Amino acid sequence: MQDKILDLLKRSQGYLSGEEISSRLKISRQGLWKYIQDLRDAGYDIAAVPHLGYQLVSSPDRLFPFEIKHNLNTKFIGRSISYFDTVSSTMDLAIGMGIKGCVEGAIVIAEGQSRGRGRFKREWFSPKHKGIYLSLILRPQIAPNAAPILTLLTAVSICEAIKEVSGMDARIKWPNDILIHNKKLAGILTEISAETDITHFVVIGVGLNVNNDKKALIAGATSLAEQKKEKVSRIELLQEILRRIESNYLGLGKDSAAAILDKWRKSNITLGRRVRVVSEKNTREGQALDIDTDGALLIRNDSGLTEKVTAGDIAHCRDHHA
Amino acid sequence: MQDKILDLLKRSQGYLSGEEISSRLKISRQGLWKYIQDLRDAGYDIAAVPHLGYQLVSSPDRLFPFEIKHNLNTKFIGRSISYFDTVSSTMDLAIGMGIKGCVEGAIVIAEGQSRGRGRFKREWFSPKHKGIYLSLILRPQIAPNAAPILTLLTAVSICEAIKEVSGMDARIKWPNDILIHNKKLAGILTEISAETDITHFVVIGVGLNVNNDKKALIAGATSLAEQKKEKVSRIELLQEILRRIESNYLGLGKDSAAAILDKWRKSNITLGRRVRVVSEKNTREGQALDIDTDGALLIRNDSGLTEKVTAGDIAHCRDHHA
Repeated sequence: MQDKILDLLKRSQGYLSGEEISSRLKISRQGLWKYIQDLRDAGYDIAAVPHLGYQLVSSPDRLFPFEIKHNLNTKFIGRSISYFDTVSSTMDLAIGMGIKGCVEGAIVIAEGQSRGRGRFKREWFSPKHKGIYLSLILRPQIAPNAAPILTLLTAVSICEAIKEVSGMDARIKWPNDILIHNKKLAGILTEISAETDITHFVVIGVGLNVNNDKKALIAGATSLAEQKKEKVSRIELLQEILRRIESNYLGLGKDSAAAILDKWRKSNITLGRRVRVVSEKNTREGQALDIDTDGALLIRNDSGLTEKVTAGDIAHCRDHHA
Repeated sequence: MQDKILDLLKRSQGYLSGEEISSRLKISRQGLWKYIQDLRDAGYDIAAVPHLGYQLVSSPDRLFPFEIKHNLNTKFIGRSISYFDTVSSTMDLAIGMGIKGCVEGAIVIAEGQSRGRGRFKREWFSPKHKGIYLSLILRPQIAPNAAPILTLLTAVSICEAIKEVSGMDARIKWPNDILIHNKKLAGILTEISAETDITHFVVIGVGLNVNNDKKALIAGATSLAEQKKEKVSRIELLQEILRRIESNYLGLGKDSAAAILDKWRKSNITLGRRVRVVSEKNTREGQALDIDTDGALLIRNDSGLTEKVTAGDIAHCRDHHA
């Protein structure tokens, strides 16, 4: 009911009388008053003026499910939302939901994470109400080794959404980092549950620093607010990310990744650079030439041989050959 | 304590006096008597003769953890055992344990499964006390796309164990079936939890028909007992499977799969045959030439081209070219 009341208030120009809200939603005036109080308790500033009615003055900076769904207009991504104040990790919850058979497109959102994680079980610092901590469950009909394309797709979608909502240009560092001015803004974690040749489901995790001020950032990291020198709406950004992921994901079936790869090439800062690839097994260096259709990085080593890199972290080096 | 009493009884030639058992295990005669009763309730036939003591006459046909551990002599596989009378699926339990961080080598064993599953979410018929329904958690440091070697390794290990315990020759049909006389004896299911380039853990599931009589078999399936015309010890077979998997798995690190591939080639009935490969996307036919180092099947189609098959079911055809 609260979401319906909010929806009416948001769509109204000026004040909306209690009588009208009550009759539209078929609740008593007393009931309405109670819901309004609950909304105020949740942080909504709702003005009430005798003879005029109610007006929404401001909404709290929260990623409430009804805020996410309001004008979201996606087909399946974000239609099912699990929202939490603080969790250990949205990834762990989402994997559990995936195993239990949740619908494709279901998302887990938390205002903060106590043990947010990135690749290689590294921590993702997740202070409350500052960032977007999202896990999304997809059920693509692809082989498990095709899953890296979903990391590229998510990176592209995040850059598109950031551009749309904040006007900022974010860039992708292979395989899963989003940077602004060479500082880390967001990370993507793609986890797979699969048989050897069949994907059961994929969970895509996004940790994105939105309104962190300097104190709420670790070294080498940045936030949209720090870069833009003003707050950015987390809810608008999250909605746009969900929309872009859906649209790119639906496009994936049509042209088998070519469009994603093209967009990725335009937004990345890895190709053309000299990189050092550090994996558990070895360290390699070379010129980043291109990405392969399966998301792997192609590098030319100093012997002139082209190698395909699927795993590991990369460091961008100064280019001795430029 | 029951496992210690059983251990003493098993190692003893003839009768073992209650006094000796009590003093060795530091329990009262009354306590010992109670444990003996519990063991009898669990199906152990234990003779008790005044002035002589106790003797183990027979053990029940159950896969109790202390029976599995008795003389198992593995380093890590089967050291942690979760044992159930009936579960929906040992795979689901094992995946849950994997996520919670259980030790490598932990196994889940059930006497029966209500919803045992094979590949493509097909059912694995799992009548109680007839078969071996096993899930094993491994944490190999391999890329997710290298996991198919573990299916091959398990298939080889099962054939070795069957040969050792029952003297029967079982054969492997790519990728995951164990057959005797062209009837299905066992299936292997390998599930992966991974990031795009890092394996968190792998769960290997085995469903093996041991003592099923005809009534407890579906069409096209067989059991060791049906083939051998006598019961086979499930516990000895399970122990030998665990030992063989461990020894092959530890060997994997040394020679990077070459030994497994060689053993697989010797035990398979797919190579050299004409096969039809049915996947969700298409159907292909050709001559099965070899397996690749990553476990994929190489087939030569009728145009003479060699294709690599990583997914799908295969049917063995009559060979028109022979």
